[in-house]
Amino acid sequence: MKLVELVPNFSNGRDKAVVGLLEKCVESIPSAKLLDSEMDYDHNRSVITVVCPISDVVGLAFDLIKTAAENIDMDVQKGLHPRFGSTDVMPLVPLEDTSMEDCVKLSHEIGKKVGNELKIPVFMYANSALDPKRKNLENIRNKKFQIEELRKAIGMGDYVPDYGPSKIGKAGATIMGARDLLIAYNIYLNSDDIQAGRKIASAIRARDGGFAYVKSLAFRIPGNNLVQISMNIVNYRKNPVYRIFEAVRSEAAGYGISIVKSEFIGMVPRDAIVDTINHYLMSDIENKNILDFKAGKI
Amino acid sequence: MKLVELVPNFSNGRDKAVVGLLEKCVESIPSAKLLDSEMDYDHNRSVITVVCPISDVVGLAFDLIKTAAENIDMDVQKGLHPRFGSTDVMPLVPLEDTSMEDCVKLSHEIGKKVGNELKIPVFMYANSALDPKRKNLENIRNKKFQIEELRKAIGMGDYVPDYGPSKIGKAGATIMGARDLLIAYNIYLNSDDIQAGRKIASAIRARDGGFAYVKSLAFRIPGNNLVQISMNIVNYRKNPVYRIFEAVRSEAAGYGISIVKSEFIGMVPRDAIVDTINHYLMSDIENKNILDFKAGKI
Repeated sequence: MKLVELVPNFSNGRDKAVVGLLEKCVESIPSAKLLDSEMDYDHNRSVITVVCPISDVVGLAFDLIKTAAENIDMDVQKGLHPRFGSTDVMPLVPLEDTSMEDCVKLSHEIGKKVGNELKIPVFMYANSALDPKRKNLENIRNKKFQIEELRKAIGMGDYVPDYGPSKIGKAGATIMGARDLLIAYNIYLNSDDIQAGRKIASAIRARDGGFAYVKSLAFRIPGNNLVQISMNIVNYRKNPVYRIFEAVRSEAAGYGISIVKSEFIGMVPRDAIVDTINHYLMSDIENKNILDFKAGKI
Repeated sequence: MKLVELVPNFSNGRDKAVVGLLEKCVESIPSAKLLDSEMDYDHNRSVITVVCPISDVVGLAFDLIKTAAENIDMDVQKGLHPRFGSTDVMPLVPLEDTSMEDCVKLSHEIGKKVGNELKIPVFMYANSALDPKRKNLENIRNKKFQIEELRKAIGMGDYVPDYGPSKIGKAGATIMGARDLLIAYNIYLNSDDIQAGRKIASAIRARDGGFAYVKSLAFRIPGNNLVQISMNIVNYRKNPVYRIFEAVRSEAAGYGISIVKSEFIGMVPRDAIVDTINHYLMSDIENKNILDFKAGKI
């Protein structure tokens, strides 16, 4: 079946009523399934995860962006997280029989409709980028270049939107694109040695010669004296989770440091879990052998 | 939701048309889902795994037993596996919000209906046993006491059926009962030392003082010179898979033996997999965080 995952990020992580309206957009489409909904107060940002058949993606994405535009006013919005607009980023992820090309097409259809009908400037990123510089989200919008800077720069140089007007209204601008399913994964080390942490993060990440599909950074977690290795695994089939975990364990051991815990942020694809269990148990479970129910009341 | 897993064992593992008729019984109930269907030629036995809402269990189980009775003639059936009847064993397993008590009740309802309407003798086992000696399937039907022996013994001493006539027809007798969700799990060792294998199996099983919910036996696998530790984990929440795997690894290492591979037979409950990955990755994934889809075509 052709399915798409939508992981829109909205610039309101404080008002449950607003997030409720966004969730209602999902509920109003019977074929769409809300998998996750998270609000972050400090960042003032919420992220919802939805899966729906490819035929309903344009309608749902448009509804969400319209609802966010009507209910999140970027003229007054403040928060820790960098942002461009009420719907800040709208990634589309191909699942099951959907191809990346399908999602790229959909993203442009949505972008065009949002630009034309809602008069919101849209920047296409990731696999949908028309300008190669826009492939990386960080090149478009970052801590130093947010809606405040965009208001002045829009329409000029690197800031001509792909769709919609070169003018920022209350809804700000939206960044839209198709990307791979990624796993956001953090490993915590029993050390506050951020230098060692940085070397470990460097050893495993693509840009320094590590795993080709791993992005990573080291952070010192205040309060509990731990170092966090924060990762995005952008292709978990080529760089499986257990391999990254074992590589971090080995690198850390070189500094006399060990792993305290690890955590997944958001959803974890089931086949990534099956890979990992098969590695550790030397087994060969297939997806179809997993019983999607738990034992009853005994 | 109140769900029940049915894992009926039928005495035909050779004729696809017959198994097809049994699968059709499942397909004819929209709420029922066929999860697995396996045929074993040598054993001349097939096992299907179905999940359905509690309200449809009696109808489905009765249909299956009736269809098997009409299509599997125990007067001529032969095979390696011990058997009593065309539907040899019909276990009911409580899932999700269903209790063991619910399944015990259902099993008696089905047993009574099968005895009365199909005139098939029914023996209640496991948690549904009325006679404590019938709790263990092996005490009712085993290699030395099969349909041939039952024909003479039925109605006498330990062989008075719980439901139905004391008379064996072409459908033989059926063993029915409610049991826990179990994991059938095998570990293979790189050794043909069956003595060591037996000691390892003994070390981990309940009856010799090992894990309270593990049954195990050692087998020498002809052809490839491996020893197999064959296990049933009858409560995977109290005796999680990774703990059993690590215990076998440690015991085997004491004989200079290591694990070659492990395998699950049939379905593996998802929460058992989540437990295992959380152990090895020191993580805290919850069932709800698992994305039940795989990445699309990239």
